[in-house]
Amino acid sequence: MDETDALLRLARAQVGYLATVGPHIVPFVFAVDGHRIVSMVDAKPKTTTHLQRIQNIRSNPSVSVLVDHYEENWSRLWWVRADGTARVADEDLDHIAALLQAKYPQYADVDLIGPAIIVDIERITGWSAE
Amino acid sequence: MDETDALLRLARAQVGYLATVGPHIVPFVFAVDGHRIVSMVDAKPKTTTHLQRIQNIRSNPSVSVLVDHYEENWSRLWWVRADGTARVADEDLDHIAALLQAKYPQYADVDLIGPAIIVDIERITGWSAE
Repeated sequence: MDETDALLRLARAQVGYLATVGPHIVPFVFAVDGHRIVSMVDAKPKTTTHLQRIQNIRSNPSVSVLVDHYEENWSRLWWVRADGTARVADEDLDHIAALLQAKYPQYADVDLIGPAIIVDIERITGWSAE
Repeated sequence: MDETDALLRLARAQVGYLATVGPHIVPFVFAVDGHRIVSMVDAKPKTTTHLQRIQNIRSNPSVSVLVDHYEENWSRLWWVRADGTARVADEDLDHIAALLQAKYPQYADVDLIGPAIIVDIERITGWSAE
């Protein structure tokens, strides 16, 4: 899978998995903006521990983001992984919120609170069984 | 979500996400055996970098395993995360292979090569929107 194909599959994926140091892993919704992955803390119900990702990124910005396709037919599996550096940001929120709202109609009913998590992609790799 | 419910959802999930130090994250198939998550290197097509998980576990055994349910209706989202200690094992392979073959009929056509990755679950947490 070439880098362009990998970036397209990443951008189209509805859910991703964000791994931070620990290791710690959470599902998250996101948008791709150039070579950045952007997401924002929202008002979906959470336990306080959900924000562990914020603490982890502040202590070590290395992250890995995975999206994948799984089905019973293993000849159709694929995944894409983006490794990069994350930061917790309080700026550019209107732009990021607009990207997320355009991708997810669900955000019409769920408030975007912030802060944002912005991942600068440094390496993107993918694999497809086909 | 209580621990029993979380463990059941973990056991029933078809695909999980394994985060090791780095952080590094891969999708994987697995079975739950008591309070252990077991998986085995198999003959599904791979790039060599897929085995980064083995190197990472040998250098630091802390891992986090996530399973989740995503759909457009965000009121039905859920996830379960198991944190624990992993080891790469060359013993007990017949037992682990039998568990994996019982869960995944696909393993009738894909060889289980080994080694196994065994995760002793130390903490399991879950969240459900419902």
